[in-house]
Amino acid sequence: MSKIYVIGIGPGNYEQMTGRAIQAMKNSDVIIGYTVYVDLVKEHFPDKEFMTTPMKKEVDRCVLAFEEAKKGKTVSMICSGDAGVYGMSGLMYEVGERYEDVDLEIIPGVTAATGGAAVLGAPLIHDFCLISLSDLLTPWEKIEARLLGASQADFVICLYNPSSKKRHDYLQKACDLMMQYKAPETVCGIVTNIGREGEAARVLTLHELKDTQVDMFTTVFIGNSQTREINGKMVTPRGYRNV
Amino acid sequence: MSKIYVIGIGPGNYEQMTGRAIQAMKNSDVIIGYTVYVDLVKEHFPDKEFMTTPMKKEVDRCVLAFEEAKKGKTVSMICSGDAGVYGMSGLMYEVGERYEDVDLEIIPGVTAATGGAAVLGAPLIHDFCLISLSDLLTPWEKIEARLLGASQADFVICLYNPSSKKRHDYLQKACDLMMQYKAPETVCGIVTNIGREGEAARVLTLHELKDTQVDMFTTVFIGNSQTREINGKMVTPRGYRNV
Repeated sequence: MSKIYVIGIGPGNYEQMTGRAIQAMKNSDVIIGYTVYVDLVKEHFPDKEFMTTPMKKEVDRCVLAFEEAKKGKTVSMICSGDAGVYGMSGLMYEVGERYEDVDLEIIPGVTAATGGAAVLGAPLIHDFCLISLSDLLTPWEKIEARLLGASQADFVICLYNPSSKKRHDYLQKACDLMMQYKAPETVCGIVTNIGREGEAARVLTLHELKDTQVDMFTTVFIGNSQTREINGKMVTPRGYRNV
Repeated sequence: MSKIYVIGIGPGNYEQMTGRAIQAMKNSDVIIGYTVYVDLVKEHFPDKEFMTTPMKKEVDRCVLAFEEAKKGKTVSMICSGDAGVYGMSGLMYEVGERYEDVDLEIIPGVTAATGGAAVLGAPLIHDFCLISLSDLLTPWEKIEARLLGASQADFVICLYNPSSKKRHDYLQKACDLMMQYKAPETVCGIVTNIGREGEAARVLTLHELKDTQVDMFTTVFIGNSQTREINGKMVTPRGYRNV
């Protein structure tokens, strides 16, 4: 039976991959991914074959992986962060329905939510939600309902895909929605280029976040009612008992 | 300036730690943690000093770390999963307010949500919430509001601390609440002992989950309205476009 590893390589630098991810790539004949991520790992696996497909060609990339596996190769399909968080593992199972005799093994990694949280301090210590602001595959009404529901229930919220060229005002719209239930003084944080060159973080209020322009390499964190700033870090307490 | 690393060691086995976590422990004089987690790493760092405190002594453990750092030692404080997800990093910043000249560095790891998701298939591919059912530090009313809000907005939900001796019926209560908005046929999954000996997973419906007894080593996943079972795996599609 052929084997495909679907691997989360973490934020991007080699040091943030797990030993299991590295071992799986070592065991593989071919490593497949979006061009940017393949470039991140290439130098560490000089004897492997690499194949890339561009962004928005995710189904093609999955088909490519299964076709290579059908030839008897062991394949690594790599994703940034964790393959199971807005990543390729779901699509691999869906495309895999057409392929028999290929074994999928999902190898988890550090996703932007936890990688970015570590840079900001400790924003995700209590119940939190991940919401993607991309409406490419999800109706905006559904995203809106999730922003409102999560804010009303006082979750910490982590936003993926907060902006793009076509969606430059989505973060502003999201902040307006969240402010229906969250105070404008709510402690927030943004992290750009997590674990890569140019990593930068900033702690700010929800009101300030609303007027902040972010790019597609930014992950955004909105605190709950207990989140506070401690010496420049964003910290959510574990519970309601005082230290 | 003294240094404390706050490290998420992942699900437990050495292979699931990141290189950065391993390097930080190598750089440390003393490794501090809850007894169970210290036992998981001990054999890999034979030349280090180890210190443990029992469960529910988290504040004492933080104070211990800062007191050791004050002596000039480099300290690793280890947590299972990710230190920033229901972990020690928040409390470390809170306790750290009393200590000057100690630098905290948070090192992220694979949390139970993504580690367990990889075992089940791909349940977390779209927007999701993490909710802890422990009401030790959080009023039950708040947990209830979050279960209802997350269900109404059709999030995938991942439950931490779904059960304990004193809270044997909490998962059942949670299922009843979620079924106010989620169909009884909603695809769910449970994973026990993620990445450790005795790892076990099961895919079942929300209705079946309600009558399932789980222990404190179990992480529970409740799908959204699109989640389905594919060849025994729990898979949430990325979006609403057909493959």
